[in-house]
Amino acid sequence: MIIVVKNNPDKKQMDNLVKWIKGLGLDIHMSKGDNTTVMGLIGDTSVVDEDLIRSLDIVESVKRIQEPFKNANRKFHPDDTVVNVGGHLFGGGHFQLIAGPCSVESEDQIVTVAKAVKAAGATVLRGGAYKPRTSPYAFQGLREEGLKLLSLAKRETGMPVCTEIVDVRTLPLFEDVDLIQVGARNMQNFELLKELGRTDKPILLKRGMAATIEEWLMSAEYIMSEGNANVILCERGIRTFEPYTRNTLDLSAIPVLRDLTHLPILVDPSHASGKAKLVLPLSLAAVGAGADGLEIEVHNDPVHALSDGAQSLRPEQFADLVQRTDVLLTVCGKERDK
Amino acid sequence: MIIVVKNNPDKKQMDNLVKWIKGLGLDIHMSKGDNTTVMGLIGDTSVVDEDLIRSLDIVESVKRIQEPFKNANRKFHPDDTVVNVGGHLFGGGHFQLIAGPCSVESEDQIVTVAKAVKAAGATVLRGGAYKPRTSPYAFQGLREEGLKLLSLAKRETGMPVCTEIVDVRTLPLFEDVDLIQVGARNMQNFELLKELGRTDKPILLKRGMAATIEEWLMSAEYIMSEGNANVILCERGIRTFEPYTRNTLDLSAIPVLRDLTHLPILVDPSHASGKAKLVLPLSLAAVGAGADGLEIEVHNDPVHALSDGAQSLRPEQFADLVQRTDVLLTVCGKERDK
Amino acid sequence: MIIVVKNNPDKKQMDNLVKWIKGLGLDIHMSKGDNTTVMGLIGDTSVVDEDLIRSLDIVESVKRIQEPFKNANRKFHPDDTVVNVGGHLFGGGHFQLIAGPCSVESEDQIVTVAKAVKAAGATVLRGGAYKPRTSPYAFQGLREEGLKLLSLAKRETGMPVCTEIVDVRTLPLFEDVDLIQVGARNMQNFELLKELGRTDKPILLKRGMAATIEEWLMSAEYIMSEGNANVILCERGIRTFEPYTRNTLDLSAIPVLRDLTHLPILVDPSHASGKAKLVLPLSLAAVGAGADGLEIEVHNDPVHALSDGAQSLRPEQFADLVQRTDVLLTVCGKERDK
Amino acid sequence: MIIVVKNNPDKKQMDNLVKWIKGLGLDIHMSKGDNTTVMGLIGDTSVVDEDLIRSLDIVESVKRIQEPFKNANRKFHPDDTVVNVGGHLFGGGHFQLIAGPCSVESEDQIVTVAKAVKAAGATVLRGGAYKPRTSPYAFQGLREEGLKLLSLAKRETGMPVCTEIVDVRTLPLFEDVDLIQVGARNMQNFELLKELGRTDKPILLKRGMAATIEEWLMSAEYIMSEGNANVILCERGIRTFEPYTRNTLDLSAIPVLRDLTHLPILVDPSHASGKAKLVLPLSLAAVGAGADGLEIEVHNDPVHALSDGAQSLRPEQFADLVQRTDVLLTVCGKERDK
Repeated sequence: MIIVVKNNPDKKQMDNLVKWIKGLGLDIHMSKGDNTTVMGLIGDTSVVDEDLIRSLDIVESVKRIQEPFKNANRKFHPDDTVVNVGGHLFGGGHFQLIAGPCSVESEDQIVTVAKAVKAAGATVLRGGAYKPRTSPYAFQGLREEGLKLLSLAKRETGMPVCTEIVDVRTLPLFEDVDLIQVGARNMQNFELLKELGRTDKPILLKRGMAATIEEWLMSAEYIMSEGNANVILCERGIRTFEPYTRNTLDLSAIPVLRDLTHLPILVDPSHASGKAKLVLPLSLAAVGAGADGLEIEVHNDPVHALSDGAQSLRPEQFADLVQRTDVLLTVCGKERDK
Repeated sequence: MIIVVKNNPDKKQMDNLVKWIKGLGLDIHMSKGDNTTVMGLIGDTSVVDEDLIRSLDIVESVKRIQEPFKNANRKFHPDDTVVNVGGHLFGGGHFQLIAGPCSVESEDQIVTVAKAVKAAGATVLRGGAYKPRTSPYAFQGLREEGLKLLSLAKRETGMPVCTEIVDVRTLPLFEDVDLIQVGARNMQNFELLKELGRTDKPILLKRGMAATIEEWLMSAEYIMSEGNANVILCERGIRTFEPYTRNTLDLSAIPVLRDLTHLPILVDPSHASGKAKLVLPLSLAAVGAGADGLEIEVHNDPVHALSDGAQSLRPEQFADLVQRTDVLLTVCGKERDK
Repeated sequence: MIIVVKNNPDKKQMDNLVKWIKGLGLDIHMSKGDNTTVMGLIGDTSVVDEDLIRSLDIVESVKRIQEPFKNANRKFHPDDTVVNVGGHLFGGGHFQLIAGPCSVESEDQIVTVAKAVKAAGATVLRGGAYKPRTSPYAFQGLREEGLKLLSLAKRETGMPVCTEIVDVRTLPLFEDVDLIQVGARNMQNFELLKELGRTDKPILLKRGMAATIEEWLMSAEYIMSEGNANVILCERGIRTFEPYTRNTLDLSAIPVLRDLTHLPILVDPSHASGKAKLVLPLSLAAVGAGADGLEIEVHNDPVHALSDGAQSLRPEQFADLVQRTDVLLTVCGKERDK
Repeated sequence: MIIVVKNNPDKKQMDNLVKWIKGLGLDIHMSKGDNTTVMGLIGDTSVVDEDLIRSLDIVESVKRIQEPFKNANRKFHPDDTVVNVGGHLFGGGHFQLIAGPCSVESEDQIVTVAKAVKAAGATVLRGGAYKPRTSPYAFQGLREEGLKLLSLAKRETGMPVCTEIVDVRTLPLFEDVDLIQVGARNMQNFELLKELGRTDKPILLKRGMAATIEEWLMSAEYIMSEGNANVILCERGIRTFEPYTRNTLDLSAIPVLRDLTHLPILVDPSHASGKAKLVLPLSLAAVGAGADGLEIEVHNDPVHALSDGAQSLRPEQFADLVQRTDVLLTVCGKERDK
């Protein structure tokens, strides 16, 4: 970490800063120029509060040189992490498709969709039981009943299941869930992350809408530092000024993360765009960018045709998407897990 | 709500949409133009999922006409809400100062600061017991011990206290807290909001870093729809591309909110800027924009001079800030509560 | 266009608004609800200033139903526009590679790179003569001399050339340029756009850093409404809060634009990311998303090895990129123009 | 400038980088740690292209320590710059009001408004002759005729005038303009900035919608480095995700700029918000934040009542705003120029 100190700093404050840094077990390398003094901090700076130092009167600016994440850092773990979700491997060259409806609605619905997406090539079934909704007046999911229906679909199809947790108190109910999803809104719900870190469940950690890549990795670090290394990252769009898409899918994050971390990286093109017709091109783009898998919303509801046009694909559209991504995967030297 | 339908929509999908809308108890007013059909939905549209409709194949765009929030809406509650925090009134022309350290560190520290900020004019003591930190390696607060020290300071000074909740499971420990703060990262922790809605505690709801004003009010709605009307909003900066300040304080939000809602509106200039020297000008600006109060970080640590330069002010700087805002308040026709 | 009027609007203002709208040659369809009146404007609303109406006291909100762009709108021109750049076709299923150095530096440099990128598969040579730089102290390009060197390279290799214009007064010097680039910073330099609209030169219109897709298309409209239909769009990243990449490449814009407009759509992965190692994965992603071509920075400078690591690729890296994108293109049903 | 080099860098590339830096006349201070090498550049680094270095393969990150702006930098010019606009002083404790209509429409209109705003306290008349509009179909201003009408209003009232330039070719027509405005969209129209730098006219440089404070100061530097030191900065809102206001007014920029630069700083609350009712609270906030003046849209059109509700204030609203800001100014130790 490098600290740029202002011109003619107050001596007492300077002494206190030096003392405080040394108190953290770090050494200091001082370098005085004409207008500024630069302090180089030597040692493990991950404990240092960058914001605190930046806010000091005598400090002009601060630059971290070592990344503040350790467990998630590829520098210290050069090999790809491979996460096993109910027998299916994420990362390390494997490619997986997680698919299913936005919300679990009924036994018939979830089992039908599960069979359809399995037939098309999905290896993990997703379905929302607890739904974080902007409005308290919107449907909040079937909740505990939804989890039961997921278990049922799991038994019927043999697919491992993935569903979102929104309340740390419900964790015991997730016993039968194979991949616990942490949604964008809870990416910095640190107490939840810590609890998940104390389990050995695979965690699908979505990027927060306003989270930088570094903050996202620090949230992975919360889980990993408690002992659970089974973290899968999932890019799902960030908030920008562009109103046409619900969020702006940041596909550059994939090669950037590939360099910074050894964790598997998925992409969710359904939520990012909010529009069914964008799911296919963004899926192909994600494959091109190097994603280790996709999470896709698929809905099947022949009676209630409203769902036909939702951000979810119909099963036959999903099957088409799988075929097309397969061809690209072959080109990219990856193979879809079956 | 207005739905713009595409040219020549699929008839079956159109029929299904109409049927679904009517099933929600709404009437439809159809208006056909050359290129588009516009559907006007008549009735209580707060139950309608705007995103779902927007994602339909046959829909070009959707526009909500009624705001989706009801309890927080000034249209239905023209008078200002006044929230009583331990005898001090927020909203309705009152002006309050919440002040105290970023983190509670020791009995001596919190009591000393409490006395200092009370002497300078603060009416509510703030202090972090549970600290949401980006890094798991950073100090996470004294937690339960911190709450006890706050209670102690409350007894010593008679000041009501304000502190942040980060885990719904700790709510029973907040019995003696007068104003429970929900931080930016938990603004959409809906399960927490619902639980807080089932108490009668005043809630200080900070704006999420990537939250629109409407989303923020919908989070207030989560609390209010469960029965707790004691919500105070607090602007603390949004995330933008500007790196110089930690966040960009959105002071336009104050007059905008004044129009949309009857809830009291505070500003936290300390966290927004991340720099002590910006706190005074931004406090004066917030008063000019019409804020009902300020939340200010104040630190007092004569031994450990590191704090001298933090984003927190020293007590004497805070006292100066109070005097300056007082003069502006008089001009603005408000008076600081004493 | 739909105008939502507030409750109990001032009658005089309402009459004036109605009169003003009718004065623009539009009809009005009034629809009164309990709390709001909705006005539907019928006719060509592209002349209506949406911001002006939104700012009226009696207006709650405004929604445009017809897109404000006409010439660029696929609704009115269903077939893809194909732009001919020196014999190479952009759009309509063709795929083109524009490649070359960031700045033209010398005859030797530009001719060497031109030959290398041509051999690798590029069809158009790019090279900056006028460089828009954030700092006045940075190299501003060889300017007129740079244009001459480009012409020379064009004669030597037979490749059409693409270079950026930054000053409307220099337009006469661009006679020999085949594709005039308008950079992100000049996307809303409307006087420049109008002048370019009065030529018949193909224009490569880059997206502004803070431009919505609609604003970008309105800038295309500036060129087209003056008579020049040879506009090619180029996505190059938008400004967000993420600091890791210089800009955030918005690949969702490609399928969105494909739907909204008939113009060809390119992607520039070099400038968006600012990092050479991101160029290949983002190029593959762009192909997956459906781009009609790429603009890639390629540098060749064996002596001055600094350039080895720049955001520019070396010729052999570019040749590798071409081979890889070719395989994806085949899969996507496109073929690279040769 | 500090360059963090990656682990085990390629020796040839490292040598080339060192050679290149020394070729720029800079010295290098090397500091080798376990995982990284840090290079400190000593000398005038304003000529160094930060982006270029950042993009090198062997470089992990770059940090500028000296600000890249010199003429605009308060470090080298501690005293406030005072700009004289037709006898009225901007900066150095003075406070000025620029007011007038969005567009010049007729002699009657501009003269009437000029007299009204002068009577209310404005010292400089603004009025748009050339209007940069998102749509080519929107009114583009009276252009040269508008400039003539401004001159006429200047002669009638004695007020200096301020108007926007959008095309470098029209500069000769601005002879009689006292303060030339560069709008947000042209903040990085560097060729225009250079030409303005060759005049001695006061320049009102608005912040670009996506410009960081540093980029904004670099644009001021473009003008100043050509010899014109008469630059006034004007904050007018940045682009964010919040849709309620047209832009987000960044009032933190005022105290930040006060620290970084000696140039006068104005605020334009009309364009930022796009709503007349936000102009007063944001004006008071701007005064609280320490602005040196305001630019306010004022419209007077008794016949055409549309303007009553525009983002422009009516003259009597402006007069009220002046009285209210005056009281705040007194408190803030400033006085409005008369």
